[in-house]
Order: sequence, then C-alpha cells, then structure tokens
Amino acid sequence: MSDEDFQRARSPEQKEERKTLLLEAARELLTESRTEQELSLNELAKRAGMAKSNVYRYFESREAILLELLRQEWTLWFGELRTSVDEMRLPRPGSKPAARRGVRDFTRVDQLVLRVAETMAQRPLLGRLCSILSSVLEQNVSAETVRAFKLDSVEFVKVLSEYLHGKAPELSTAQYEELFHTGFSALVGLWALAHPAPAVAAVLEDPRLTPFRHDFARDFARHLSLLARGLLALEASRDA
Amino acid sequence: MSDEDFQRARSPEQKEERKTLLLEAARELLTESRTEQELSLNELAKRAGMAKSNVYRYFESREAILLELLRQEWTLWFGELRTSVDEMRLPRPGSKPAARRGVRDFTRVDQLVLRVAETMAQRPLLGRLCSILSSVLEQNVSAETVRAFKLDSVEFVKVLSEYLHGKAPELSTAQYEELFHTGFSALVGLWALAHPAPAVAAVLEDPRLTPFRHDFARDFARHLSLLARGLLALEASRDA
Repeated sequence: MSDEDFQRARSPEQKEERKTLLLEAARELLTESRTEQELSLNELAKRAGMAKSNVYRYFESREAILLELLRQEWTLWFGELRTSVDEMRLPRPGSKPAARRGVRDFTRVDQLVLRVAETMAQRPLLGRLCSILSSVLEQNVSAETVRAFKLDSVEFVKVLSEYLHGKAPELSTAQYEELFHTGFSALVGLWALAHPAPAVAAVLEDPRLTPFRHDFARDFARHLSLLARGLLALEASRDA
Repeated sequence: MSDEDFQRARSPEQKEERKTLLLEAARELLTESRTEQELSLNELAKRAGMAKSNVYRYFESREAILLELLRQEWTLWFGELRTSVDEMRLPRPGSKPAARRGVRDFTRVDQLVLRVAETMAQRPLLGRLCSILSSVLEQNVSAETVRAFKLDSVEFVKVLSEYLHGKAPELSTAQYEELFHTGFSALVGLWALAHPAPAVAAVLEDPRLTPFRHDFARDFARHLSLLARGLLALEASRDA
C-alpha cells in the first residue's frame, strides 16, 4: 500500500476532515500575507500534509478552495455581526426631534450599517476574497460549483436582510436585499481602493489627495447609508 | 551609428511621437483582447517598432503606459459625454406634478447619470482600466507618477462636477464631487461583476440568480441615482 493510498480518506467524516485541513491551510497561508495569486495548490497541499494529486479528491481547483473559504468567512462574519448588533441599544424610531417634524429618522439604519462595515473590516479575509470574487475566484471553477455558490449567496443575502429588517424596519426586507446586492460592487471596489500599494499610500498623505484616502469601515458604512437613503427616497418619489 | 541610436528620439516632438506610438500599441493590443496581465513590455515594444530597452526612455514601466492610457481614455470619454449631454433636452426643473407637490424632482439628475453610465459602457477600455487601477496599474510605478496621476484625477473630477452642476444644479459641485469619488468604488466593482467569466455568465441564466446578472450601464446609472438621492436626503436631514 502506497503512502498515497494510506492518505486517502475513506469515510464521509474523513473526507470532511481533509477538506477542513485544506481550508485551514488556505486561511493560514493567506493570513501569512501570501496574495491570492501567489497561493499555489502545491503549497496548499504541502501545508495540509497531502500530495497535490490528492487535493483533487476534495476540491476541483485552488479557486474552489478559496470560494469555500469565502462561504466560511461570511458565515463567521454573520455570527459576529449578530453578536455585535444584539449588544447594541438601538433607539426607538421617531424619538428624535427631526422625526417629529416629519424628516425620516435614519439613526437605526446608520448604526446598523456602521456595524456591518466595522465587523467586516475586522475580518479582512472576507473583504479580500470578495474583492477578487469575479476577477479570480470564479475564473477557474465548474459551472456546478459557481451555481451552488451563487444560490447560497442569494440565500445568505435574504437571511441577512430579514435579520436587519427585524432590527430596523425602516427598510423592507426587499430593500435590504437590493441594498446588499447594489452595495456589493462598492465593497469590491472599496476594498481594493482602501488597501493601496505602499507607494500609493505614501503619496496619499498629500492633503490635496484626501478624496482618495479611504478607510474601509468608514467609507463602506457611508456608502451603504447613502444607498439606503436613496432607496427610500426613490420609493417616496414613486408613491408621490 | 547603431539602429538603437537611430531610433532614439532627439527632439521633444520626437519624444511625444514615440510615446503616442507606445500608447497606440497598448490600446491595440488590449482591444485585441489581451488581458492587462498578458500585455508584456516586449510585445508593446515590438508593436510600436522599438527595442524594449528603448521603451524605458519614455515610460518607467508597462503600468505607467496603462496609467497614461487611462488618462487619455477619460479625456476622450468626457468629450463624448459632453456631446451626448449637449444634445439632450433636459426638462426644466419643477415642471413635473410631483415637484409641485414638494417632492424633489430627480428627472434631470437621473437623465445625466444615465448618460454618464451609457457613454462609459461604450468605452470599455475606460472601465477595464478603472477596474484594475489599484490592483494592477498603481502597483509598479514611482511615487512621482502616482502623485501626478492622482492630482490630475482630483482635477478631472472637479471639472466633470462643475460641468454637471451647470446642467443639473439639483446637486452642488461639491456633491457631484462626492458622488463621483464615492461612485468610483462602485464602478470598479461593477465593471468586474458585469463582465464575468463565460462559465459564470452561463450559470447566471438561472432565473433564481437574477440579482447577480449585471448590466454595467443600467446598474451603474441606478447606483449613481441612488447615491445622488442619498446625498440630498442627508443634506435635508442635516438642515432639518
């Protein structure tokens, strides 16, 4: 019996264990500052203690491993978001003077999207993987893998939206869904812009270049706030 | 005298001519569907009829050529936008029934941002280069080149904003500037999402995945509309 045979996972549990090992290896290597481009299947296999040929029993490609890692990341993030939001004391709507004068009160929505952005900023692998979703992750996987991933994404946005609607019903669940589907492109772009090359970061110290100095949490929260206001303003003008 | 010496540009005019040749070579090669990653300095030099070593007299790197190409692209685009907008018949503000009932009239702003998005969609090189600005273009250029590029960008956003404010003063020039600085991250992300790998595009035919099916012009126009409404709603709530 060769080493290879010995390593082969026999039961579903063993398979899951091998998958977990590979995902942990990817997480470690990326955290050690390898870029996604540098991360090779060879290195992944080595770190997980497997032969490269063996990896293909569990994942079809390096990109498929990263997609699965992204799914793990958003699940972990959602848990953290809920913990963070459940600890908040959200004000009762309409308690502010402006609201009494008929101006819509955005305090709760603004507080929620700030938590969304802040908890994302604390999970940098999530932002990194989102920012290369279409340019890298989805470039080398089968249609079946993409379909499963996208269906899970739709479902995830729905669950997230229902949760937030329960916390701040100023936006309907459908409006939160649109907020996140629209806001995702901002996340992709902003993550890249907020993490410039070191030479660029140094240049941005120039006060004339302030508009290009991005802080992910601050700017993503503001972007989501503006989109949320926009969605409600659009609804108001339709109703008018 | 070697061929190399012969090729060397002597006067400022000759230098400009060489630069133009290189930029045209880059434009041609990218339009022939080379990806930005595939485009090598070797190939660029060959297409422009120069020795590779000679290229460095005019540009510090492949990325510097692409940055200059982006500058050309936005200049050409702005000309096209103005032609397109100057041909429009923008409605007079406040002429719609809703406006008379006190609901802000967004017709002109919506028409303008639609033109912005549509003219951009017709200049795909602009979107492509914007979408890789921080991930590729700014990764291999000197601080001096980045600074000059960013200062020109700030100036360009200002000129664009003043122009649009003149056409639809619903937003102040400063608000248009924020609209474009904020909207740029959406452009970066949306460009990538609206141009998925072929396998992904096929999967997105699934009606359950409609939220992930992006049309750049339609979705970028909507994104800018929402942000514009958001900026004005924010202003209104501050004034309240």
